[in-house]
Amino acid sequence: MRLNLELNPVGIVTKSRAAGARELLRKLTALLRRRGIHYLCDPATAKLLGERAKSRTLPVLAGSVKLLVVLGGDGTLLGVARSLTHRPVPVLGVNLGKLGFLTETALGDLEEVLANVLDGHFEVEERMMLQVQVLRGRKSIATSTLLNDVVINKSALARILELDVRIDGQFVAIYHADGLIVATPTGSTAYSLSAGGPIVLPGMKAFCITPICPHALTNRPLVVPDSVTIQVTLESESPDVYCTMDGQIGLPLKAGDRLKVRRSGTILPLIVPHPRNYFDVLRKKLRWGAR
Amino acid sequence: MRLNLELNPVGIVTKSRAAGARELLRKLTALLRRRGIHYLCDPATAKLLGERAKSRTLPVLAGSVKLLVVLGGDGTLLGVARSLTHRPVPVLGVNLGKLGFLTETALGDLEEVLANVLDGHFEVEERMMLQVQVLRGRKSIATSTLLNDVVINKSALARILELDVRIDGQFVAIYHADGLIVATPTGSTAYSLSAGGPIVLPGMKAFCITPICPHALTNRPLVVPDSVTIQVTLESESPDVYCTMDGQIGLPLKAGDRLKVRRSGTILPLIVPHPRNYFDVLRKKLRWGAR
Amino acid sequence: MRLNLELNPVGIVTKSRAAGARELLRKLTALLRRRGIHYLCDPATAKLLGERAKSRTLPVLAGSVKLLVVLGGDGTLLGVARSLTHRPVPVLGVNLGKLGFLTETALGDLEEVLANVLDGHFEVEERMMLQVQVLRGRKSIATSTLLNDVVINKSALARILELDVRIDGQFVAIYHADGLIVATPTGSTAYSLSAGGPIVLPGMKAFCITPICPHALTNRPLVVPDSVTIQVTLESESPDVYCTMDGQIGLPLKAGDRLKVRRSGTILPLIVPHPRNYFDVLRKKLRWGAR
Amino acid sequence: MRLNLELNPVGIVTKSRAAGARELLRKLTALLRRRGIHYLCDPATAKLLGERAKSRTLPVLAGSVKLLVVLGGDGTLLGVARSLTHRPVPVLGVNLGKLGFLTETALGDLEEVLANVLDGHFEVEERMMLQVQVLRGRKSIATSTLLNDVVINKSALARILELDVRIDGQFVAIYHADGLIVATPTGSTAYSLSAGGPIVLPGMKAFCITPICPHALTNRPLVVPDSVTIQVTLESESPDVYCTMDGQIGLPLKAGDRLKVRRSGTILPLIVPHPRNYFDVLRKKLRWGAR
Repeated sequence: MRLNLELNPVGIVTKSRAAGARELLRKLTALLRRRGIHYLCDPATAKLLGERAKSRTLPVLAGSVKLLVVLGGDGTLLGVARSLTHRPVPVLGVNLGKLGFLTETALGDLEEVLANVLDGHFEVEERMMLQVQVLRGRKSIATSTLLNDVVINKSALARILELDVRIDGQFVAIYHADGLIVATPTGSTAYSLSAGGPIVLPGMKAFCITPICPHALTNRPLVVPDSVTIQVTLESESPDVYCTMDGQIGLPLKAGDRLKVRRSGTILPLIVPHPRNYFDVLRKKLRWGAR
Repeated sequence: MRLNLELNPVGIVTKSRAAGARELLRKLTALLRRRGIHYLCDPATAKLLGERAKSRTLPVLAGSVKLLVVLGGDGTLLGVARSLTHRPVPVLGVNLGKLGFLTETALGDLEEVLANVLDGHFEVEERMMLQVQVLRGRKSIATSTLLNDVVINKSALARILELDVRIDGQFVAIYHADGLIVATPTGSTAYSLSAGGPIVLPGMKAFCITPICPHALTNRPLVVPDSVTIQVTLESESPDVYCTMDGQIGLPLKAGDRLKVRRSGTILPLIVPHPRNYFDVLRKKLRWGAR
Repeated sequence: MRLNLELNPVGIVTKSRAAGARELLRKLTALLRRRGIHYLCDPATAKLLGERAKSRTLPVLAGSVKLLVVLGGDGTLLGVARSLTHRPVPVLGVNLGKLGFLTETALGDLEEVLANVLDGHFEVEERMMLQVQVLRGRKSIATSTLLNDVVINKSALARILELDVRIDGQFVAIYHADGLIVATPTGSTAYSLSAGGPIVLPGMKAFCITPICPHALTNRPLVVPDSVTIQVTLESESPDVYCTMDGQIGLPLKAGDRLKVRRSGTILPLIVPHPRNYFDVLRKKLRWGAR
Repeated sequence: MRLNLELNPVGIVTKSRAAGARELLRKLTALLRRRGIHYLCDPATAKLLGERAKSRTLPVLAGSVKLLVVLGGDGTLLGVARSLTHRPVPVLGVNLGKLGFLTETALGDLEEVLANVLDGHFEVEERMMLQVQVLRGRKSIATSTLLNDVVINKSALARILELDVRIDGQFVAIYHADGLIVATPTGSTAYSLSAGGPIVLPGMKAFCITPICPHALTNRPLVVPDSVTIQVTLESESPDVYCTMDGQIGLPLKAGDRLKVRRSGTILPLIVPHPRNYFDVLRKKLRWGAR
């Protein structure tokens, strides 16, 4: 039980193209006003509400609010998570479409769940994030904090990649593959799962290194502790190789470019249904057998 | 036992960048001259030999010779196979590098094997080829005959694809995946194997339809008879989707584009070692257990 | 369109423990009597109906009737198929429980579908069967005709098996594994699928050889033409190794025992819904994506 | 650098049937005697040496020595590890046959490595072990401490199992499968890998729950923290279901029996080559690509 004060103001981020988003926002903001809670919104949401004065960029929003309500799919929440690099803000994900791994609260439950959260009745699951730095020679050309995964991927036309993987400086192997995924436990149920990776419980302190269509059939996914530094060097010359972050941001790579992946200092405090059973999501989304 | 006459002239195609290619060619052409056999070459090989008069384009070569000797890797042989669309010419593949699935003759065995072949002592394995037509609206924008596979693949930055697959007009499923491979038995040990497909014996009359990193974990590879027509329609809008043929030719696709895949009327008569045991290659390349 | 005469008499086989089986049988037999069609039953069904005079053993039933109606699950139909070794009898599978791959007709559709079938409006899919012979030294110790698969499997306590596999006499490999499955296309969606095998369309003329938990990660499933003879020899000494047929019949094996698997001369004419789309079953049972 | 005193006496356990074991033991004991180090042996080793007075049972050996030298394969070392439940003793594994994951020291390096170890120059990797308790009703019918894995497995003839899995009391799913493996990181490269599990680095604090041939294709391996209690209940009636421990000990199970798996309080201090690169083993045993 916490005081309401802590969760005021609230930030709202919406997948604004979603059907019914405007109507839902009206309900949500009315509820907040009734409780005397201030709110701020990302620009698209502010526009949808017709309340320009409430508009803040994501980084500013992340720095100003005590609770973030994200209305959308897992993709919307991933974008929000990337901006939460300086201070952890509890995030409540509400799915506007089908059930998400991150946006577990159903639309119909929003009012009840939000009321509980504002009353301080909620549970938080700390999701680790990864920090990736892209190095070209001695220069760092990009850095990001990600909730799901960082991927080196070739385009359709590029030849098979050669990737040199090292863990804490120790040589692991040269992977000949379409690409390679470094995923957090949260990301283990995203792209890594499609590529043959295991499901890693959200509470684990681990990375999963999953090759994509590896040439060597023995190149199986590798689970490593989150205390290590993973370095992936693109050995092969190829015009169309990219580093993609959470499947949303892309960066062209050149031969010799290196990715350094570590655990981020930040975590994402994800508000989860109470009582919490993570396996409900697996049973619903993956149709694992119920009783 | 066949008459030598049948195998005169011989065509020679080389992966000209390979180390020692020139020296090898000299040996090979000397051997042919000693036996009074004429030869023609692809342009790069003719240049390497310094015999410009022997130079022919691949299609002309394919139309003129009785035997094709391919010096290189599986990739070199795939390129040659694509030009053999009008008449079947026996192909002898000699690997200049590591053991290939198609170029099974080792460099050191070239003289002995070639002498046997010219004497008519050889075995041929008929490899089926697939014919693919790419349709945009009512127009055919590309057509090709392939020994390995045709692939729809997204670039690193594109969103997951939606592919509508039909077999002889019957709806199979919408695949949500990075891509989809339609492979011949020959192609089953190439890209399809890395994507999780089975090994299909070269003699089979079948296609293997293998999704690449499918979102639905139940979307397993599908083996279908070679008598069917497979239609794959790209449902999703995405700027960077390609159709790739034998991993060597790329064609950008637009939403609505359709691939029609059928068995080609042509086969590739691949000269195989005698006595023939296909599984030798699996044991050597995949290190399947020997006795 | 065929004459009714052809489908008289009808054989009925029931999974007699299924709930509601007796009531269903009453409806079914009433329908047959109204149309003047005779029927015979397997002993359990006859007992359930209280019509002992109609009772015939499965082999006698298989030899006497023109149509077999099987009420139950895929398991019930597999047992029936094994007795149809001398003459092909069209089989209509009606599932009493959940949707089956073989028993595609829903209970609620039985009367309509059966009426159509008796009127000659039906489509038949010819399912190939495999014939297995188990050899100990020079003696044949068992032989069977199977619709799904033959499996060599170790018990929980036995050490990993060593299996020598040959195709048409050619050595394939020594498999070190928990076991090995040789499946027909029909069986490809049964045990073989769980062990990592592909889905092979029912119309294919092929076997799928799928190792179970192989020690070598490169030992991938192998699809071979139905014209071959597959020989599997149990090399390892182990007290608890079995040959299981369609998962229903078990036979203890000793070191040195050999399985010979060939295509059976018999096929199973399976009555399928009209219009026929095999992929409906994949979409329903495996939840492949619909539109 | 430690004092020699700490590693005196030394225990020796041998896979006594291995070729050349006796000669090797003579060398080893001569080396120890030259350094004034006492040794004790398991009964089979003492017999092989003809030194009955040195014979001790494994538990007594484990309780008496400061260093254990295990000559054999991974299987030999697993047996030793199960007896080290009260106090951790550093173990040096020397492979008498092919390279092992646990017995990394080659026979030819024994003298040099052992001299270094006795001089105090060695590195130890702490391998977590799991503790399993088998419960029937309110009674504990077995308990064991294992380095690799505990498995519920059906015999060849048993029907598919139904296994209810709970983690810290939370219902995960009902698995319909041939069996289920709970593996430590050390065990992740053993049976679990053959069943489709990931490779988990030895330093991880985690279990891997890997189903064997699951009916639901979405039942993928699950990596969970070592802080949890995993409970697996055998739901299905079947005459031939076993719990196997490290693949070496078997225990028949009945419907309703429950396995409780936790991290053991004990660890195995495994002596590893110096400088240590775990991935050398993966590259050698799984032939992952080197440079």
